Amino acid sequence: MAGSTYGNIFKITTWGESHGDALGVVVDGCPAGLELNEFDIQRFLDRRKPGSSQFATQRSEADRVEILSGIFEGKTTGTPISMLVRNTSQRSSDYSEIASYYRPGHADYTFDQKYGFRDYRGGGRSSGRETIGRVAAGAIASKILSELGVTVTAYTESIGDIHISRENFSLDEARSNQTGMPDKAASEKAEKYLKECMQKLDSAGGVVECTVHNLPAGIGEPVFDKLDANLGKAVMSIGAVKAFEIGDGTAAARANGSSNNDAFHIDNGIVTKMTNHSGGVLGGISDGSDLILRAYFKPTPSIFQEQQTINRAGENITIQIKGRHDPIIVPRAVVVVEAMTAVTILDLLLQNMTSRLDKIKKFYR
Amino acid sequence: MAGSTYGNIFKITTWGESHGDALGVVVDGCPAGLELNEFDIQRFLDRRKPGSSQFATQRSEADRVEILSGIFEGKTTGTPISMLVRNTSQRSSDYSEIASYYRPGHADYTFDQKYGFRDYRGGGRSSGRETIGRVAAGAIASKILSELGVTVTAYTESIGDIHISRENFSLDEARSNQTGMPDKAASEKAEKYLKECMQKLDSAGGVVECTVHNLPAGIGEPVFDKLDANLGKAVMSIGAVKAFEIGDGTAAARANGSSNNDAFHIDNGIVTKMTNHSGGVLGGISDGSDLILRAYFKPTPSIFQEQQTINRAGENITIQIKGRHDPIIVPRAVVVVEAMTAVTILDLLLQNMTSRLDKIKKFYR
Amino acid sequence: MAGSTYGNIFKITTWGESHGDALGVVVDGCPAGLELNEFDIQRFLDRRKPGSSQFATQRSEADRVEILSGIFEGKTTGTPISMLVRNTSQRSSDYSEIASYYRPGHADYTFDQKYGFRDYRGGGRSSGRETIGRVAAGAIASKILSELGVTVTAYTESIGDIHISRENFSLDEARSNQTGMPDKAASEKAEKYLKECMQKLDSAGGVVECTVHNLPAGIGEPVFDKLDANLGKAVMSIGAVKAFEIGDGTAAARANGSSNNDAFHIDNGIVTKMTNHSGGVLGGISDGSDLILRAYFKPTPSIFQEQQTINRAGENITIQIKGRHDPIIVPRAVVVVEAMTAVTILDLLLQNMTSRLDKIKKFYR
Amino acid sequence: MAGSTYGNIFKITTWGESHGDALGVVVDGCPAGLELNEFDIQRFLDRRKPGSSQFATQRSEADRVEILSGIFEGKTTGTPISMLVRNTSQRSSDYSEIASYYRPGHADYTFDQKYGFRDYRGGGRSSGRETIGRVAAGAIASKILSELGVTVTAYTESIGDIHISRENFSLDEARSNQTGMPDKAASEKAEKYLKECMQKLDSAGGVVECTVHNLPAGIGEPVFDKLDANLGKAVMSIGAVKAFEIGDGTAAARANGSSNNDAFHIDNGIVTKMTNHSGGVLGGISDGSDLILRAYFKPTPSIFQEQQTINRAGENITIQIKGRHDPIIVPRAVVVVEAMTAVTILDLLLQNMTSRLDKIKKFYR
Repeated sequence: MAGSTYGNIFKITTWGESHGDALGVVVDGCPAGLELNEFDIQRFLDRRKPGSSQFATQRSEADRVEILSGIFEGKTTGTPISMLVRNTSQRSSDYSEIASYYRPGHADYTFDQKYGFRDYRGGGRSSGRETIGRVAAGAIASKILSELGVTVTAYTESIGDIHISRENFSLDEARSNQTGMPDKAASEKAEKYLKECMQKLDSAGGVVECTVHNLPAGIGEPVFDKLDANLGKAVMSIGAVKAFEIGDGTAAARANGSSNNDAFHIDNGIVTKMTNHSGGVLGGISDGSDLILRAYFKPTPSIFQEQQTINRAGENITIQIKGRHDPIIVPRAVVVVEAMTAVTILDLLLQNMTSRLDKIKKFYR
Repeated sequence: MAGSTYGNIFKITTWGESHGDALGVVVDGCPAGLELNEFDIQRFLDRRKPGSSQFATQRSEADRVEILSGIFEGKTTGTPISMLVRNTSQRSSDYSEIASYYRPGHADYTFDQKYGFRDYRGGGRSSGRETIGRVAAGAIASKILSELGVTVTAYTESIGDIHISRENFSLDEARSNQTGMPDKAASEKAEKYLKECMQKLDSAGGVVECTVHNLPAGIGEPVFDKLDANLGKAVMSIGAVKAFEIGDGTAAARANGSSNNDAFHIDNGIVTKMTNHSGGVLGGISDGSDLILRAYFKPTPSIFQEQQTINRAGENITIQIKGRHDPIIVPRAVVVVEAMTAVTILDLLLQNMTSRLDKIKKFYR
Repeated sequence: MAGSTYGNIFKITTWGESHGDALGVVVDGCPAGLELNEFDIQRFLDRRKPGSSQFATQRSEADRVEILSGIFEGKTTGTPISMLVRNTSQRSSDYSEIASYYRPGHADYTFDQKYGFRDYRGGGRSSGRETIGRVAAGAIASKILSELGVTVTAYTESIGDIHISRENFSLDEARSNQTGMPDKAASEKAEKYLKECMQKLDSAGGVVECTVHNLPAGIGEPVFDKLDANLGKAVMSIGAVKAFEIGDGTAAARANGSSNNDAFHIDNGIVTKMTNHSGGVLGGISDGSDLILRAYFKPTPSIFQEQQTINRAGENITIQIKGRHDPIIVPRAVVVVEAMTAVTILDLLLQNMTSRLDKIKKFYR
Repeated sequence: MAGSTYGNIFKITTWGESHGDALGVVVDGCPAGLELNEFDIQRFLDRRKPGSSQFATQRSEADRVEILSGIFEGKTTGTPISMLVRNTSQRSSDYSEIASYYRPGHADYTFDQKYGFRDYRGGGRSSGRETIGRVAAGAIASKILSELGVTVTAYTESIGDIHISRENFSLDEARSNQTGMPDKAASEKAEKYLKECMQKLDSAGGVVECTVHNLPAGIGEPVFDKLDANLGKAVMSIGAVKAFEIGDGTAAARANGSSNNDAFHIDNGIVTKMTNHSGGVLGGISDGSDLILRAYFKPTPSIFQEQQTINRAGENITIQIKGRHDPIIVPRAVVVVEAMTAVTILDLLLQNMTSRLDKIKKFYR
């Protein structure tokens, strides 16, 4: 139970290390009949690809996905879809040094404590490359959701103290610039800030926001598998995420009921809420409004400044990390948040199909 | 899969509605040999009891727990522990009105959308009383953890904009006042603020902080079942929680790597971190420092002001909620956060026992 | 993970010991909208009640079920249904002797090995009374299945070497006699045989057969959650079951392909099989024919003859068991097999709803 | 939840179809520190390889395993182990015919009913090649078990009506002949019988027996996750298995308590049972004796005689199957039963580590 499987009905199992032979995922419980090919997956993977930005690792990997099972004549068959990406650009020698010590902010120490030793090459299993499997699975979940009319969209909301303005929102902008911000002005400011960080041999954090449009009301289970609880787990399980919020999130704790409650309204038989402080969920169940969540990422822990730490021999030492490291995790993490959100939403959408006897009877009639 | 079961090895299943006959929990996977009696549970339940504070519902329920199974001669036997609390003070008539409409900020609308109808009495399954089962289970988890030397402690960190000062920290204060704040001055300020809210027929939100002391390094699984991911789910699954964070949390997104990284240090063979921005977890695995998490609660949605909403007949209406409602959820939720944290930590502690072959061999030798 | 939870979507969690305060079950994932009251459960429980036959324990317990949650205005709400039965006729003194030694054929020794000690009163958790929770849950599953047109029927197929004749099949007979056999002549023979066993202070075994009519084709998952695999687990998890088979079962291993294959046939658009050696399942998925399974029960291990065994002090001793013990488990186990079959079938029926994208799209349209 | 994942702690997820690009398995929850290389896996896979016997498909596949993750410097790291075998000898053209009709005894019809269409090439996911992933995972489980002193051994017990004699038992014989029988005389008789079957264009069934030596007492959980229940599921989930039994199995249903009970005996502090009718399990928990189980396989459904069936167009037709088909499944299934037994035993061994508080305290001290 090393926890590499996620989901109840749409169930994904990821595997692989940064510098092993390959990384991948098995998606079990994908409904039969979805048209799917490698391009559907590749265009998601390309969004997290290293080398795509000056703020991203200059490791020139193709990260080319191969689908090994579960598709026949262009459609999913209902059986497990196994996908893998070969590691082609491993330079393990870069990492031989870190075998001997524990990098601050990394999982080196905790892996050694848990397992007695670790695959130190590039962070092993705790590398950002672990998310390849999540993104490949998320591509499938997103495609199914879009067939159901549900869209999941993530983008960078802030980098350091620089936030997007919602007036300037442009998803095209977010998908084409180097920050993932859907606001050109904010993005340019953020680029400047990131360059300053790099000059100071430092790194920056930021926030990814994700919205889900057109999710039907009624999705999510009332107690432990609340929609927001499962999303909380999904998002917090992404490396470097330190906080998760839904709707107004932390701000709700400072609000009053009178301002935080969303009034219901009906117009021509269509129920809406006049505000959406709740972020689309009430009592753990979707309310038909847009779902809005945020993931807070810490700064990249690999910085080029001198740092104090200890080595495996039990000595206090000073280190200076080398190699290829992004000054910020956020732009490449956008698609990971989107993927984990899609997987979670789809899983709960499928679970919800059994909530009412009348609908089950209709299904089997 | 209505999601009323939580945990993998230490597994809890809660049941019950606000105004049904009883509420309870079945704890499966509790190790054999723990001394346990009803008092161990009751003292936890008393911390969430209504009527314990002027800011808590004046419903005078004893909430007396009964243990029905799993104990023999004062010790747990390893078989399921079933516990229940009878509902004795239901005044369903208070709630007959809300049968017809959807209260803003509540789960009335979403339950109807999901299930076609709902038990509207006191919120039914989405009532705060649902947490009785969580707290009873948490009492057991906490007791086991304390036998292992691990302590879990929650308290109110803020109410509205009033935050505790860490210099004045007193757990005794937190356990005896009406806010759950471990800082007398802050608590008095918060009391004043809550009275103002009540006068305005309004409600307030706040933050619960929880720390875990003495957790061994190595607890948590590397990918989806990260310590912080599972805690994120556990905490987000508590009604009214809108955000979750670990360590510096949201602030980490505004920090730089140079300030956010925690330097390791060794002294006389004892490894420590010189700071604890990470909140005790690296790569999803405990690092031996104190674990620190925060749960952000929205204001009580039941307020006595007039509100706009819709009824089941599909009409826009104005309502004014009656009955017994706390102006704030936070003080009574402190023990719920503590309980969910304890259950999660214990579950991962047990899971971790199988991480290394050498330790398994030693166990079975 | 003491294994007291079963099922994926329709999930049951049982608890309780033979001589504790009560036994019960929590059913989570029951669809909303099913009319359900205590009588629906009681009539199933009455079928396993002690004292109902001269071959059943003369413990005069009412075994009266109480539903504590999950029902509102006579219908299931979709939230957990908690049910309990109080133990009222415990005579623990009968069992004080067995505290000190290990009864052959019982779980006394293995519980002590696993947990270090045990609740020895009446077998504790390994008592036949543990099945009360299964039967209560099975009553609900059966009712849902019957709403979907699916019926589950179990009866005694053999006792010792006495088998029913299918020509004389009468379910009324099975439900009214003391053997559970649907064949009057066989039942009378079996009664005579059981009386002989009792005279010899001995006990007997037998076989329960269970058929499922009108199950749609397509139920069951292709690999580990095959319909027959899940049924195998469900049935083997009933105490005293030593073998499980589906369709021709063990006989298939002696057959040839030419005789064992079932030819498909179509008539007026209706697909049938000309024989049903497979017992209604092909490749782990229902084929639309009747599902037929058998559970093989060992003889009651509690016999009144002298037996050799050891005591907790580590000495070889001779014992003679006292108290109330059925000479055969089978008649009271019929409803348990039926219950576990119903729970398993329903769970897979619900899981199957997500197998095809076109049907999911139709569901959410 | 298409059911391709098995196990709770030692968790395996298989994927792949007969004629897809590859088949494989992800093993999650494997403890760190096990020495493991591809040869450890290959020698298990070679035991199920086609072409190894005149009674096995003459498909000359190497079935060469590749380990893609989870190993570092020759040892398991505690992270998922992904293994794959490329399909190299697919002759899909052989199967184009079966696209249009439903072979008796196969899953063609049920897959179409469940998913709307199927990958018909070689049975797709319901092919015997699906077991490649199980066997690769079983190789790892077996290796860990052997480090703990536990050995799992399967062999052919019977083919048609020809049974082995236990006096002549030779595991070397079983591992070197073409039937998997550990009895030379029986094996020769069975070979003759199988040749007769082939001449008649027919096929045969048989029984695989599996024993587990040196399993500690106390393994298995008391209710739904009984050792025999989990083994029942594991074994019944193997294609073509129609019955499962433990110990005396079906014979126990015809026995009396006096003959079926196993007397305990102690000698020099060592507890034994004077007989082992129970097959090593009491109340679902291992009793320290040898575990003995049997899997009953039906005859290969692909026979070369003419058969009646229907086609996808809804017509009654007569077919004659072509291609490469074993006249018996049993010899190649021996290692599959062994693998599933090993995975199940190991999983419950790991789960058992959390059963007692005193042992947990000792572990974490």
